Amino acid sequence: MDFDVHRGFLLLSGGLSNRTAMNYCSHCGTPVSHRIPDGDNRHRYVCDACGAIHYQNPRMVVGCLPVWEDQVLLCRRAIEPGYGLWTLPAGFMENSETTAEGAQRETLEEAGARVEIVDLYTLINVPDIDQVSLLFRARLLDLDFAAGEESLEVALFAEADIPWDELAFRTVKKTLEHYFEDCRSGQFPLHLSNLDRRH
Amino acid sequence: MDFDVHRGFLLLSGGLSNRTAMNYCSHCGTPVSHRIPDGDNRHRYVCDACGAIHYQNPRMVVGCLPVWEDQVLLCRRAIEPGYGLWTLPAGFMENSETTAEGAQRETLEEAGARVEIVDLYTLINVPDIDQVSLLFRARLLDLDFAAGEESLEVALFAEADIPWDELAFRTVKKTLEHYFEDCRSGQFPLHLSNLDRRH
Repeated sequence: MDFDVHRGFLLLSGGLSNRTAMNYCSHCGTPVSHRIPDGDNRHRYVCDACGAIHYQNPRMVVGCLPVWEDQVLLCRRAIEPGYGLWTLPAGFMENSETTAEGAQRETLEEAGARVEIVDLYTLINVPDIDQVSLLFRARLLDLDFAAGEESLEVALFAEADIPWDELAFRTVKKTLEHYFEDCRSGQFPLHLSNLDRRH
Repeated sequence: MDFDVHRGFLLLSGGLSNRTAMNYCSHCGTPVSHRIPDGDNRHRYVCDACGAIHYQNPRMVVGCLPVWEDQVLLCRRAIEPGYGLWTLPAGFMENSETTAEGAQRETLEEAGARVEIVDLYTLINVPDIDQVSLLFRARLLDLDFAAGEESLEVALFAEADIPWDELAFRTVKKTLEHYFEDCRSGQFPLHLSNLDRRH
């Protein structure tokens, strides 16, 4: 298969941005207008009937880089965006949880894997789609993992075997590149970066 | 005035959580139900008419710890929560920006201050109110600052003068405590922590 490494991201860009069009006020059901409220400097969805201002803000994608000896755990996606491509276990942070709890939950859901969090490893801004990716280095606690509903398969990869041309997201590619580079020095500082804006 | 150091946070907890009650579908205007959708494991607002699932996720509060020689810049809040109490310049991250851009924007809006970002300094989860606070160490570029619309006043404080009993938020108190402690060693690592759950 001739995968484009950016395919997953492009699909994500088209499909999952947090900037959702709003037609009706979720509080009172009246059609909303899209305008700059008094005292603000940005367009918001505003209800002229009940006065509600509906703010939309970036979302966090939290996940893990699960490590076992010289291998890392990847999941092959069973859903779009990036169906059939490989990723680190990660997903949208939920209310009521911490970033690390969300990362562990996603790792359990997508890879059936139990991990111990080591440290926050990459924080990557993706302003085009209003997301911030937070990936944690984590120690895989056992080899009893299994594909969850959103994965086709889950497997361990040494550096030489990473499917670089079949990765679902640029954030995952960047994190893996940092990781194998840092393995040479044995130092794993937090890497903060931004994905370039495309529009 | 007899301020409770936690007052700001409690007000925030009561007033600004991201978990907003939804009555009507923002896509089609039909009343929504609050239930666990098929294939999910959490309650969501779901529209049985058009099928939309309305996810709610944590929000990021981004801001700066602006430093000038041995002093830090604080703002006295002109709005609730925490009216009259002191804070670091910070606010909700907006769509289309990076975390550092949001932190600089908030610093300009609330304190009229221009800063150069040094590094991410504290990441504090506040799961009770579905927020993650990201505060950056920053160098104040000049002394030409002034209170913005959301501030009563803006001032520089040396450690001995910090109004510890009149701080608006626990995240701010924690960040200032780390900072002055780290000043003694000259090392400023990223501090990750969670505020305790209260309910």
